[in-house]
Amino acid sequence: MSEVQSVGVIGLGSMGMGAAKSCVRAGLDVYGFDLNSQALEELGSFGAKAVSTNAVEFADKLDSVLVLVVNAAQVNTVLFKTGLATALKPNTPVMVSATISAEDAKQIEAKLAEHNLVMLDAPVSGGAAKAELGEMTIMASGAQSTFDALEPVLNATAAKVYNIGEAIGLGATVKIIHQLLAGVHIAAGAEAMALAARANIPLDLMYDVVTNAAGNSWMFENRMKHVVDGDYSPKSMVDIFVKDLNLVSDTAKDLKFPLPLSSTALNMFLSASNAGFGQEDDSAVIKIFDGIELPGVENKQK
Amino acid sequence: MSEVQSVGVIGLGSMGMGAAKSCVRAGLDVYGFDLNSQALEELGSFGAKAVSTNAVEFADKLDSVLVLVVNAAQVNTVLFKTGLATALKPNTPVMVSATISAEDAKQIEAKLAEHNLVMLDAPVSGGAAKAELGEMTIMASGAQSTFDALEPVLNATAAKVYNIGEAIGLGATVKIIHQLLAGVHIAAGAEAMALAARANIPLDLMYDVVTNAAGNSWMFENRMKHVVDGDYSPKSMVDIFVKDLNLVSDTAKDLKFPLPLSSTALNMFLSASNAGFGQEDDSAVIKIFDGIELPGVENKQK
Repeated sequence: MSEVQSVGVIGLGSMGMGAAKSCVRAGLDVYGFDLNSQALEELGSFGAKAVSTNAVEFADKLDSVLVLVVNAAQVNTVLFKTGLATALKPNTPVMVSATISAEDAKQIEAKLAEHNLVMLDAPVSGGAAKAELGEMTIMASGAQSTFDALEPVLNATAAKVYNIGEAIGLGATVKIIHQLLAGVHIAAGAEAMALAARANIPLDLMYDVVTNAAGNSWMFENRMKHVVDGDYSPKSMVDIFVKDLNLVSDTAKDLKFPLPLSSTALNMFLSASNAGFGQEDDSAVIKIFDGIELPGVENKQK
Repeated sequence: MSEVQSVGVIGLGSMGMGAAKSCVRAGLDVYGFDLNSQALEELGSFGAKAVSTNAVEFADKLDSVLVLVVNAAQVNTVLFKTGLATALKPNTPVMVSATISAEDAKQIEAKLAEHNLVMLDAPVSGGAAKAELGEMTIMASGAQSTFDALEPVLNATAAKVYNIGEAIGLGATVKIIHQLLAGVHIAAGAEAMALAARANIPLDLMYDVVTNAAGNSWMFENRMKHVVDGDYSPKSMVDIFVKDLNLVSDTAKDLKFPLPLSSTALNMFLSASNAGFGQEDDSAVIKIFDGIELPGVENKQK
């Protein structure tokens, strides 16, 4: 197979947009696809070859595909229900970077294989800022030849690429275990800051102590700043962690493995979503605690 | 009060020894006290003015006292049961740096006041390495005059001193909330690595991914290295977190506040202690998970 020169990026949310722009910067021919016309305009004016709501019309132009949508249902829709998998050139490598279960990854690989397409099981991490810089962390599994074929795309978008092995599903599992930690750390940060509020410790001071000591986490430092600032505009939403901790829970069920903290954290995010905070920033999980005063939040003390 | 020139350091464990050596380096006259003769020899040869199992015999030499023992019972013993509080010069500032409850901190302050002694409620964080470098994080409350009097000791031992307020108990509470995060993060790290082991993800790779991504925490990076290496020799023991998460639980009970993750993490450390791992490194909390293979641990798969 000749070197990949073009890439179709499907899903131009916070991660997909950053990845697509990084590919433009790296000199690849980028085709961007999303249902959001504002995102299409943004990528178009950044230097994409073409943008569209329909990937199929450019299928013959694509040497590779990067799928950065939200979940497995969306991956299945964009690849198989639109007819894209049928329209792509044989052997086109498809990098599936949504956070999905290992089982879904295997089923998607099997369906791609029916269309003579190869898959990299390649979830990403790092947040929007890292995606924008072309410095995502990619945890991937698949055939070495698929890694090789996608090298221009991996180089353009990632600071670090982990090759976990040949088996599709390993990438998905590593990402899910990563999300276990990310989700528990946000919920733990919320629990700690809620207790601080209840004990009349100034939250900015508590934040400052923790971020300078051994109790810190990446998520505490990033998300509890939103609590200190009283800003719950969604960078990443509560309902994303409802989804991701459900994937953790499904993984545990498949393996018959107990996960006491993750199941507790899932219940906390479910409580937040059920209370109406599902579309707020994931730090809004702190709002499940009653009887405390938080910056920018109406006092719920009874 | 004249400037503090001498300090009695009571408790020469991993944190106390580092703090005492940092005081020697800063040019203070250091008197070291512990029941462990090996620790006394170590500090003596490092340049302490004197070392002893009995602080009372040097009480008239001490301009200040730093108490770095394990818990409130030990603080009460070394200050009040030995007669030290009676023997110290009036107005000697006593910096109590054990991790204790806010209630214990207030009771100890009241008893010190009966002996005309003043207290700084000054828990520490940072680990043995930071203590050795004189770079602990100190989260303290007390009268401004007590902070001022202890300035030479604070400067010698801390990279960062938080002045949380006048009220004794605030320092203790901030430390306990910090320990909530530290304990939950260790338990979450163990849960994630146990799931990785169950899913046949190489643990060194999982460690590498997490420490380069948003799922990282200070404790994950520090403690899960022990799991990867199969080294459970205690830097800090499981039973320390049984104690500290019990303090978290007591604080929550006093405030009638629910802490779903902390109570789950406490149960995990209790399970580890009950299974015979209480004196191992706190990362040994991972041993509560059956049916997995861990480096350096006998396979418990049935």
